[in-house]
Amino acid sequence: MRLQDESKKAAIFNATVKLVNEIGFAAASVAKIAKEANVSPATIYIYYKNKEDLLVSIFLEIKQEKTFASIRGFDESSPLKESLRKLWHNSFKFVSQNGDLQRYHDQFLNSPYSELVADQLGEDAFQPFLSAFESAAKKKIIKKVHFDLLKAFILPPLSMLANSRTGADLKMTRKNVESAFEMAWDAISLDRN
Amino acid sequence: MRLQDESKKAAIFNATVKLVNEIGFAAASVAKIAKEANVSPATIYIYYKNKEDLLVSIFLEIKQEKTFASIRGFDESSPLKESLRKLWHNSFKFVSQNGDLQRYHDQFLNSPYSELVADQLGEDAFQPFLSAFESAAKKKIIKKVHFDLLKAFILPPLSMLANSRTGADLKMTRKNVESAFEMAWDAISLDRN
Repeated sequence: MRLQDESKKAAIFNATVKLVNEIGFAAASVAKIAKEANVSPATIYIYYKNKEDLLVSIFLEIKQEKTFASIRGFDESSPLKESLRKLWHNSFKFVSQNGDLQRYHDQFLNSPYSELVADQLGEDAFQPFLSAFESAAKKKIIKKVHFDLLKAFILPPLSMLANSRTGADLKMTRKNVESAFEMAWDAISLDRN
Repeated sequence: MRLQDESKKAAIFNATVKLVNEIGFAAASVAKIAKEANVSPATIYIYYKNKEDLLVSIFLEIKQEKTFASIRGFDESSPLKESLRKLWHNSFKFVSQNGDLQRYHDQFLNSPYSELVADQLGEDAFQPFLSAFESAAKKKIIKKVHFDLLKAFILPPLSMLANSRTGADLKMTRKNVESAFEMAWDAISLDRN
């Protein structure tokens, strides 16, 4: 892809996120997105089959970027608690620096478009984490419950607290992020230390 | 209001929830909602100023219904853990019986329409809970952290687990609902018992 194409794609990406956050998925038409991105609608159809393809592709790009940012520095030889703490702080950093992407992401998951996306997508990147959880459960460090229960006390509190919109009145200082992490750990672990 | 009016209002309520869940907020026009409800668009404008007013009013009705269902049986003389356990099971019951209302509710909160609704609405009903939390924090039963941190380990895990769409692969049997409750309690309490 030529440099110019890359910058056009970036303009389309930014315009889509901006418009969807402002007026919602259904109202954000390809024509409006093209206008916002300062390209012709025909240019959008070079890269994306249709509006649906555009919206889904951008969601997947955001999801991937978020996943990579959150697992940065994962080291499978560290104790699970340390790996999770790193994931927790990475994720807060990503969301606080990319509130607009997180808004698009959450709105997408709560929209009818979410049905177009397979649930497992992107889970591969978390595979090392899954293994670390399994091994910690065997060692009785964390509770032996369904993985979805463990996940429910990590991801949703994190996205609520990191999202200034749905979220908290309180400022998520490093101290508050750390207190929240200790709460998540207390929820899933068998031992408080 | 006459009986006939009530049944028209109920038809509009049901049609709005159904259409929004199927095609999203922006695509659900007053004309389409009227058709689905089998009333004329003019009838909708008797009860609601405009589409925005309709969508917001229905969100607030759902929120109120959910709040009342979840605090049912609250007794301020019970220990906080028992009150919370009741709230937890009530909420699961409400969501599992009203998945369509919960979907509308979550989609609304993640849409640009959410900015039209004051954050505090409906919080009054939870006032007795807030007092119970304050008193438990003083007695060192729960952690002394900002209330938003406590809330983050109760409400978002609950809505993720109760919502078959965003949520879990696992079936939320009474046993799983109870395990999840114990996890929430471990997150917020100072003592595990």
